[in-house]
Amino acid sequence: MNTRKYTLIGGDLRNVKLAEAIYEDGNQVNIFGFKNAGFDMKLPENEDMQEAIDDSQIVIGPLPCTNDNEVLNAPFHDGKIQINEVFRIMKKNQLFIAGKINDKITHLAKAYNVYSIDILDREEMAVLNTIPTAEGAIQLAMEELPITLNGSKVLVLGYGRVGKTLSKMLTGIGADVYSEARKFSDIAWIRAYGHKPVYINELQNVIGDMNLIINTIPYTILDTSLLEKVGKECLIIDLASKPGGVDFVRAKELGIKVIWALSLPGKVAPVTAAGYIKQTVYNIIEELGV
Amino acid sequence: MNTRKYTLIGGDLRNVKLAEAIYEDGNQVNIFGFKNAGFDMKLPENEDMQEAIDDSQIVIGPLPCTNDNEVLNAPFHDGKIQINEVFRIMKKNQLFIAGKINDKITHLAKAYNVYSIDILDREEMAVLNTIPTAEGAIQLAMEELPITLNGSKVLVLGYGRVGKTLSKMLTGIGADVYSEARKFSDIAWIRAYGHKPVYINELQNVIGDMNLIINTIPYTILDTSLLEKVGKECLIIDLASKPGGVDFVRAKELGIKVIWALSLPGKVAPVTAAGYIKQTVYNIIEELGV
Amino acid sequence: MNTRKYTLIGGDLRNVKLAEAIYEDGNQVNIFGFKNAGFDMKLPENEDMQEAIDDSQIVIGPLPCTNDNEVLNAPFHDGKIQINEVFRIMKKNQLFIAGKINDKITHLAKAYNVYSIDILDREEMAVLNTIPTAEGAIQLAMEELPITLNGSKVLVLGYGRVGKTLSKMLTGIGADVYSEARKFSDIAWIRAYGHKPVYINELQNVIGDMNLIINTIPYTILDTSLLEKVGKECLIIDLASKPGGVDFVRAKELGIKVIWALSLPGKVAPVTAAGYIKQTVYNIIEELGV
Amino acid sequence: MNTRKYTLIGGDLRNVKLAEAIYEDGNQVNIFGFKNAGFDMKLPENEDMQEAIDDSQIVIGPLPCTNDNEVLNAPFHDGKIQINEVFRIMKKNQLFIAGKINDKITHLAKAYNVYSIDILDREEMAVLNTIPTAEGAIQLAMEELPITLNGSKVLVLGYGRVGKTLSKMLTGIGADVYSEARKFSDIAWIRAYGHKPVYINELQNVIGDMNLIINTIPYTILDTSLLEKVGKECLIIDLASKPGGVDFVRAKELGIKVIWALSLPGKVAPVTAAGYIKQTVYNIIEELGV
Repeated sequence: MNTRKYTLIGGDLRNVKLAEAIYEDGNQVNIFGFKNAGFDMKLPENEDMQEAIDDSQIVIGPLPCTNDNEVLNAPFHDGKIQINEVFRIMKKNQLFIAGKINDKITHLAKAYNVYSIDILDREEMAVLNTIPTAEGAIQLAMEELPITLNGSKVLVLGYGRVGKTLSKMLTGIGADVYSEARKFSDIAWIRAYGHKPVYINELQNVIGDMNLIINTIPYTILDTSLLEKVGKECLIIDLASKPGGVDFVRAKELGIKVIWALSLPGKVAPVTAAGYIKQTVYNIIEELGV
Repeated sequence: MNTRKYTLIGGDLRNVKLAEAIYEDGNQVNIFGFKNAGFDMKLPENEDMQEAIDDSQIVIGPLPCTNDNEVLNAPFHDGKIQINEVFRIMKKNQLFIAGKINDKITHLAKAYNVYSIDILDREEMAVLNTIPTAEGAIQLAMEELPITLNGSKVLVLGYGRVGKTLSKMLTGIGADVYSEARKFSDIAWIRAYGHKPVYINELQNVIGDMNLIINTIPYTILDTSLLEKVGKECLIIDLASKPGGVDFVRAKELGIKVIWALSLPGKVAPVTAAGYIKQTVYNIIEELGV
Repeated sequence: MNTRKYTLIGGDLRNVKLAEAIYEDGNQVNIFGFKNAGFDMKLPENEDMQEAIDDSQIVIGPLPCTNDNEVLNAPFHDGKIQINEVFRIMKKNQLFIAGKINDKITHLAKAYNVYSIDILDREEMAVLNTIPTAEGAIQLAMEELPITLNGSKVLVLGYGRVGKTLSKMLTGIGADVYSEARKFSDIAWIRAYGHKPVYINELQNVIGDMNLIINTIPYTILDTSLLEKVGKECLIIDLASKPGGVDFVRAKELGIKVIWALSLPGKVAPVTAAGYIKQTVYNIIEELGV
Repeated sequence: MNTRKYTLIGGDLRNVKLAEAIYEDGNQVNIFGFKNAGFDMKLPENEDMQEAIDDSQIVIGPLPCTNDNEVLNAPFHDGKIQINEVFRIMKKNQLFIAGKINDKITHLAKAYNVYSIDILDREEMAVLNTIPTAEGAIQLAMEELPITLNGSKVLVLGYGRVGKTLSKMLTGIGADVYSEARKFSDIAWIRAYGHKPVYINELQNVIGDMNLIINTIPYTILDTSLLEKVGKECLIIDLASKPGGVDFVRAKELGIKVIWALSLPGKVAPVTAAGYIKQTVYNIIEELGV
């Protein structure tokens, strides 16, 4: 693989690890926005952003890119990094990669003639992120439950990307895994992968026996009628992004513990997550021929 | 589940087992075209087709439906069962389900006002069929190789439906599984499922070490340049439908054994295959509200 | 199974759960020594020990039985429960079951004509306890490491009971597991179970690549020469009872993080552990024909 | 590893492959007794046995050594190889390794001052041989049954070496595995490994539901009372050495198909079996310091 020149601007621990990993592969790496990272960076920080961006081929921003559509997420930086300032400095042939680049940022990039790519839109990134997400959920369950997952009955709601990896890992440590789906073809896959298939309209028959329920579906699937069937000792972990998949108010009234766990990859395994970002950046480069 | 009235016309051992299984679920079942099945049928055969079709709600034909677009595949029947005769007898509210209903047969059905469904177009059927396909391939490999699959290096070409199930099962019996794919997201899945990913352009680097190669890709991926790297003791099993994925002539010249194995489900596990057909027929009925 | 009469005296949360579980199986259960358990006991505590022991067939004490050879481990009790007082009350036909009944306690029991059984000497108990031990170690590793276990290189030192279950579970969540053993037959089992075998004298060749090392061997296997090869980011978890398997002083000097984790079953999964105790008590009863 | 000089005398295809494999590791290898092996031997056969044995450090005979206590098993040899002739030629410092060296042969060896080792007494050899044994049984089941093993109910009788590997592999391809044992500690292991434990006196409750039963216990466990509960479509594979574990006469009367499959490693995977022999020979040498 040919080496290239990268600039990392802002982001959390994952981007620190990403910068180091890209550097260790033999690439040149400039960094900006990590002064307070609080540990020995192997790479020295550039003095100003202009110098950092310079003639890099790839400029990598935070995941997610921004919270306010104005400044980059840069928790290790003292001041503010204006997004339009970044785009102003960047040249036409430079590539901007970051996470959750929304419509507003996309428009801004276009206005400055910057080619931007949302790394979280990449299918392989979404697939790889299921691994730390599943492990994070398993860790949470182990911490909260007074029973082992091995031998427990676990219901996984949804057999999308996260549901698949979660079902596999839970089976791997010996849980008795029930995977819910609403498509007949997913039911077939669940069977092929050796889990117990639960067709959506059979949920009410099995939910009462579960020791742990992990939801991956981003709408309220665990409503009053299902929650009322859940055992009092059962733990619910909701991995779905807003609005989540649980009627949280009702669950609380019923005395059922629910943990809403979001953004697990960066929290539980920042180094692994950085490795996935690196791999995906390299894939983008290979596809684009940068 | 409500019971219904079915007619089974023609087909191989799978349809015999299917008729029995549907009957054991409490349904009424007429059969026609199985006189020479050569074993005690629990169900008596109807005298003529008109009587067999009668007022059934669902008429199930062979998989595949026909070889010549004229008569049904009916290996256990003495005479010929004309497809247009079947359609002529059927009434508007009866459903015709069979396998590989091509354009010509579809047109014919429409001409006779018959609603036909190709069961092999159903995604869940395709998924379930990967199970006997994978087991059949594993059985073949065990029969042919003087080594155990456990501990062997096995390359699975293609990570579509069959590739997924095959990779999982081979890993399950302890083979060292290399799964090839050409999409980065499939490479990510292969990693998540614990197999060794092989990106398509790295094939040449690993193919020489393999003890077994199983192809699932329906175009010539194993061409001269790759075949020349394959070891002489390596077995190749090709599961891809015509034209297959191997340059068979070149393989023969090189002294590499290739087995082209098609239609495994009906051959290696007719009873299981019949069970899958039954499940899929029930799914169709549930969706259509027949 | 016939029901019987049990008395539970002292012990931690496991014995609370054990009492409840035995009761839910339809047995009579007296309890003593749980007044401060701090939650609603479904069973009312007996007023005095004499009354609690009464005519029960089986008297179950703590795991471990005692720390000072004088009083029972009874963290939920206000006063002290003298062991000789328990034995004095017990009649000849009553069975005393507890954990780690050492020589001194055994002699005491004999002096009082009490038949005592150490439940931790039971092979099935030791086997079952490997499950929460392994899960506890996995939870610890997940909490400490900034990488996922999936995809990590993990070395398990020792292929005894804990080593076996740990290797299996770690493989199940997708770690790359290296299992060390010093017997050729264990090396063969490691191969049969699909892990990477490491013969003891090859340790030095692989130890430097590991992300996690879990020791199960109760003597100093990780000495200076091996510790010096361990990577700085590698985590060591020592599950071996005293004196442990790591030169802790040397590890600290080298800046390697070591966690010495003992008695995990009661800590991480008291309800599961109670279930195992119950099963083993039932096995003892079946064998003895009590 | 230091290279040595070996002589291979007699034996089946495994010894042919063994000779080649030892040779490819850089050792000197003489062979005698393979003239009719019917394929290009990479190694030329010695003219006479005296010359073949010569000054080799290790002389390897057949597995099993002999059928009549007089001559070596040498299916690829024209004449007879007298065992006492072999021992007469061998010198004191030469090691004789073969399979199933019974008391009579052991005495003979001693009389000639020959140090003999039965490779089938080696624990690691027994463990490794479970792999081709299990795969052979799985292959047989796949060939005989009209259903896939995936999704089938399979009962493994006995949880010794073969029972363990078989249970693991069957689970790996997706069978629903019930493992029988009579020791509580084995029941605990079966649970830890994720199979369904069947305590011996519960056999009668589950045996009727099985699609496949594989026996590994060398005494008649499947007697009339159990056989009468077995379903007519169930296949029984008996892997136990004489007298086997099935009342074969009664099974036949009941119309239940039983296959008695012995010596699978050499039959289904001679090359793998040869590899295991090689590894075990090397282990012996390492232990003895030859």
